[in-house]
Amino acid sequence: MMKVVRYPAKNNWNELLKRPSQDNSTVIDVVKQILDDIKLNGNEAIRNYSQKFDGFYPEQFLVSDDEFVAAVAEVSQELKESIQQAANNIRKYHQVQLKYSSAIIETASGVECWQKNVPIDKVGLYIPGGTAPLFSTVLMLGIPAEIAGCKEIILCTPSDKNDSINPAILYTAKHVGIKKVYKIGGAQAIAAMAYGTETIPQVYKIFGPGNQYVTTAKQLVQGEGVAIDMPAGPSEVCVIADDSGDARFIAADLLSQAEHGTDSHVVFITTSETLLNEVLKQLALQLDLLPRKAIATKALQNSVAILVETISDATEITNNYSPEHLIICCNDENAVVDKISNAGSVFLGNYSPESAGDYASGTNHTLPTNGYAKAYSGVNVDSFMKKISFQKLSSAGLQNISRTIITMSQAEGLQAHAEAVKIRLQKQ
Amino acid sequence: MMKVVRYPAKNNWNELLKRPSQDNSTVIDVVKQILDDIKLNGNEAIRNYSQKFDGFYPEQFLVSDDEFVAAVAEVSQELKESIQQAANNIRKYHQVQLKYSSAIIETASGVECWQKNVPIDKVGLYIPGGTAPLFSTVLMLGIPAEIAGCKEIILCTPSDKNDSINPAILYTAKHVGIKKVYKIGGAQAIAAMAYGTETIPQVYKIFGPGNQYVTTAKQLVQGEGVAIDMPAGPSEVCVIADDSGDARFIAADLLSQAEHGTDSHVVFITTSETLLNEVLKQLALQLDLLPRKAIATKALQNSVAILVETISDATEITNNYSPEHLIICCNDENAVVDKISNAGSVFLGNYSPESAGDYASGTNHTLPTNGYAKAYSGVNVDSFMKKISFQKLSSAGLQNISRTIITMSQAEGLQAHAEAVKIRLQKQ
Repeated sequence: MMKVVRYPAKNNWNELLKRPSQDNSTVIDVVKQILDDIKLNGNEAIRNYSQKFDGFYPEQFLVSDDEFVAAVAEVSQELKESIQQAANNIRKYHQVQLKYSSAIIETASGVECWQKNVPIDKVGLYIPGGTAPLFSTVLMLGIPAEIAGCKEIILCTPSDKNDSINPAILYTAKHVGIKKVYKIGGAQAIAAMAYGTETIPQVYKIFGPGNQYVTTAKQLVQGEGVAIDMPAGPSEVCVIADDSGDARFIAADLLSQAEHGTDSHVVFITTSETLLNEVLKQLALQLDLLPRKAIATKALQNSVAILVETISDATEITNNYSPEHLIICCNDENAVVDKISNAGSVFLGNYSPESAGDYASGTNHTLPTNGYAKAYSGVNVDSFMKKISFQKLSSAGLQNISRTIITMSQAEGLQAHAEAVKIRLQKQ
Repeated sequence: MMKVVRYPAKNNWNELLKRPSQDNSTVIDVVKQILDDIKLNGNEAIRNYSQKFDGFYPEQFLVSDDEFVAAVAEVSQELKESIQQAANNIRKYHQVQLKYSSAIIETASGVECWQKNVPIDKVGLYIPGGTAPLFSTVLMLGIPAEIAGCKEIILCTPSDKNDSINPAILYTAKHVGIKKVYKIGGAQAIAAMAYGTETIPQVYKIFGPGNQYVTTAKQLVQGEGVAIDMPAGPSEVCVIADDSGDARFIAADLLSQAEHGTDSHVVFITTSETLLNEVLKQLALQLDLLPRKAIATKALQNSVAILVETISDATEITNNYSPEHLIICCNDENAVVDKISNAGSVFLGNYSPESAGDYASGTNHTLPTNGYAKAYSGVNVDSFMKKISFQKLSSAGLQNISRTIITMSQAEGLQAHAEAVKIRLQKQ
């Protein structure tokens, strides 16, 4: 069960919420070798690693039209409708993020500057296989990529030993307009997308979750200049509640995070001792009924419930911790929201469970964990675009800022920078 | 002089513009050791490396008020006014990028979602020392940080053997409101900001240019989860021109890039053989007059001028190359602009030299090089902020999307996610 700490002294706050450090030293050499091999030997190297790690030697990587058709037939009508509703909400939320261009700013007379948002031409999405087929992540990555207008969107996901991919993943890919799905998993998939092979196109940015091999591969190709969505870490939730919180709901939310993996981190901060005790009781009751009880139990052992004096203490602890998901159940909700500066996605009130945002409220579920919310955003339309700046100076405009350019460039010892202005002024 | 290629076959385009690969293998071990040492030993380790690399053992790192006052007195009135004009233009351009919040989107009835832009609390800026004191970069990083509203903005820059920093750097820091300037250079500075020490605050994101030690250190701390502005590479310019280009201006622009460093990359693409020959002539003439002639000459040896059939060829080559700076001097300028999808900053027409954007037009000069413009933006106000998503569901709102959440989470094998919804519906 969760560790419980009552009224900790302020100088212990950071220690309390220290995440277990992640160590990829055992896989890094293996991953480096996979990357080098695929860079050199392309498809053949991918096939060998697929055989070795996934137990299947693929002749073809690309999912065929027939496979798509079969997958669509296999997904239940209920699941299709659910995916469609979720997709609609996600589209509505992300659509408004699309901004093509800023206005033209005349920074000085005759000096016009503007900024243009341009889609990243080629992006690659990774979706893990295994027991939990994350088709919801296909929505979360595919929809903003499509809204941004990326020209080439490819998706890699491993097939099972029978060369097949979970039909819900294929259905969702088709629904969001992704045409190229490759049956490749693990570090191999990241290498294939980062370097390209005979048949797999190289992409400029790679998105998506994965195991330690995948996340280490993403980190390594980032070092070589391929952009990635964000650094990875175990999933986590923090719940802040005062006496307006509902113990049954909060326990359910903590468990929905805990079931993700044994390394999930779950934090509950409250001003109410009554609520704290109720939540602990509810946790025990609800945990017993879960199919993934073993996983959730282990996750709870690394987790902590904290009783604090004031909600202001709670927000301060939370900002230091910078949770991926933050649920706020407080009487004066807006006051709490205004104080939150570090979090991935925030859920307000008693009827906003994390699972709403995981699937269907419309917000994105690819979020910064491990404290990265201090500097990183969750995936959004901007993640699939980059900004280009433009400037156009008239002859008079250049004249207006010429003294500044010449003086500054000379003070920096860059005479040719000054000459590029002077030679234009001479001509006038 | 530049290599000249006339009408290259399309399958040679990529090869022509291949950048020399960057190899940091010789410094990576040294940098790792510096990082580890400073993580462990803090200020004392920094002092030892400063002694070793910069020839000075600093007792204090923080620039004092007296030092600021002395610096302000030392900068000429002309340079002060230039810095002020540049700062004004940069402020005007960046100010409009500030967006605090999206509107509330009701994605489904009773499901409200919105996105909030929040400044990154603590950021660190690095400014190299040495012969070219890049006070202009203090403007380019400090102003958007200030506009974003970052609470703590610190700056590290190395002092010389006499413990002093170029006064223009200090004057500019003061002008943009940076109060904490630390006299630390190289990988030591990046380590100090990434980990914090007894006296130097830890930051969440690190910005700024530097030598191979600095850029390798940034890359390594990024692997540990500290955000950085972008990956680094040598500076570069590409000029596209038809017969409307002016050979004297173009030669001056190519040289203003070439003088940056021997590894600078300079590309000239034109449809006009007459212009090409004129530019080559002008390059030779103007090069002779430059104080940094030796550097520029060497840079030009790695550079290339390409004669193409059509402007459309020129834009295709340019998008593949993805230049940091792109100058377009063409009759039908807008048609060219519409085709550009990969570039850092674009300069239009005969009176928009790169040096305008380097100093004073208002756009940012911290830009993606080495082809990174395919996926990365230059520094802008968003670089100093992150986005937090919010959602608030009413009881009816949760009801409206409950079937979707339950169906999808069960299909992903995550029962507790479904339970967090079911338990709330029961209560209704």
